Amino acid sequence: MVKKPKWVVEKEQARKASAAETVWLFGLHAVRDALMNPKREKLRLVVTLNAQDKLADAIAGADIEPEISDPRRFAAPLDPQSVHQGAALEVKPLNWGRLDEVALGAGTIPPRVLLLDRVTDPHNVGAILRSAEVFGACAVIGTLRHSAPETGALAKTASGALERQPYLRERNLADAMERLRGMGYLLLGLDGAADQSIEAALDGKRDRAVALVLGAEGPGLRQKTKDTCDALVRIDFADSFGSLNVSNAAAVALYASVRR
Amino acid sequence: MVKKPKWVVEKEQARKASAAETVWLFGLHAVRDALMNPKREKLRLVVTLNAQDKLADAIAGADIEPEISDPRRFAAPLDPQSVHQGAALEVKPLNWGRLDEVALGAGTIPPRVLLLDRVTDPHNVGAILRSAEVFGACAVIGTLRHSAPETGALAKTASGALERQPYLRERNLADAMERLRGMGYLLLGLDGAADQSIEAALDGKRDRAVALVLGAEGPGLRQKTKDTCDALVRIDFADSFGSLNVSNAAAVALYASVRR
Repeated sequence: MVKKPKWVVEKEQARKASAAETVWLFGLHAVRDALMNPKREKLRLVVTLNAQDKLADAIAGADIEPEISDPRRFAAPLDPQSVHQGAALEVKPLNWGRLDEVALGAGTIPPRVLLLDRVTDPHNVGAILRSAEVFGACAVIGTLRHSAPETGALAKTASGALERQPYLRERNLADAMERLRGMGYLLLGLDGAADQSIEAALDGKRDRAVALVLGAEGPGLRQKTKDTCDALVRIDFADSFGSLNVSNAAAVALYASVRR
Repeated sequence: MVKKPKWVVEKEQARKASAAETVWLFGLHAVRDALMNPKREKLRLVVTLNAQDKLADAIAGADIEPEISDPRRFAAPLDPQSVHQGAALEVKPLNWGRLDEVALGAGTIPPRVLLLDRVTDPHNVGAILRSAEVFGACAVIGTLRHSAPETGALAKTASGALERQPYLRERNLADAMERLRGMGYLLLGLDGAADQSIEAALDGKRDRAVALVLGAEGPGLRQKTKDTCDALVRIDFADSFGSLNVSNAAAVALYASVRR
């Protein structure tokens, strides 16, 4: 029998997790961050005695009874390859509220949001959440379908950012873009073939609210998404040869957009 | 029996590959790029009939006799989880020549190099090679030990950049840094706790050759590496909270350094 490749298994698990609307987070770092997040609805905590020790403070503050598990037969339903470090936590996905409110920003600096047009790889989305947090973006917005859902793998790559960085998934990306435009956002779609650079597009407009739209590697932005942007832009000084990994492109675009 | 986690298996394979000094590349994209690279020393090509068809042009130009393999018992010694698409190519690692020559650059723009202090994750190094290529860096330099070696996984993430972007591994990183300094390079080490921003450090020095030094996530730069830098710098506008994925940090630092 042919073994299913890892990405197929991950995709199936993601779909199942999304349907059940609960997520198993795993690994000491991800579990600790979720335990310490008062907004996280926590359902089951499975730990080894060893992990319980290491997470003692976080467990004490989290109002959940840990289930102690034998490390040799770890009782959480994880992918056998998950490096769980003896800790797994079943949670509900975070509810970040409505786009219209999240995208208001803090009012101190011009808000930035990232829109992801069908970026499915959880490792890329995890890295993007970290960059969004570091550069102070109000939200990362994906599509409800064909986007990486909240999963243990995403949480692990996000290295804590999943607990803190609003990640919304909208049924229709073009509708979400129109709502952002209605709020005053300038919508810039990243496209390697664009004539205009992102710095040029932002010249004199750095005090505007800006939404950066990125597509998946390969397919890029869908036509409808492109048509809904105010402008298509490329990353400055980037050679036409080769192409950036999507999380790298997101980090650079965000950096370029927050530069003063 | 406990199954070894994937990263352990990958590490062991990487060590074995490095010892044998041959690498199995896999996947249509990576195999095609390597077949078309005249500088690649090719040892064995294993393909299914289907993959042979798809790679017909590349094979015709590559002076290597393909070994046809049954897709159900694919004859290349790959990790069973590798999504090989019916194509695998055993090669020698590329010889990019000496650092002193590679780091001379093209002479048209001030050269940039990236130094990686024990960055072991092949996916991060693969993404970094892509960014280095896109922003025209002369070289990515890792350490001979404790760095991601050329492997199939690295090649796949690098999405072709491994064939084109010089990736050197030096026995002693501090020595390599001293040699670069001797050539005229300004050595900037990325450190989230640094006082100075990368833009400030480059103010008035953008025509200098610049080497950006990045450490692994978690441990960061080793003390000896820090001591060998001309200055430690942080990424501008980055909030102290949270931290960037190392490939994202490399992309942003490179972008910031090539900005005119």
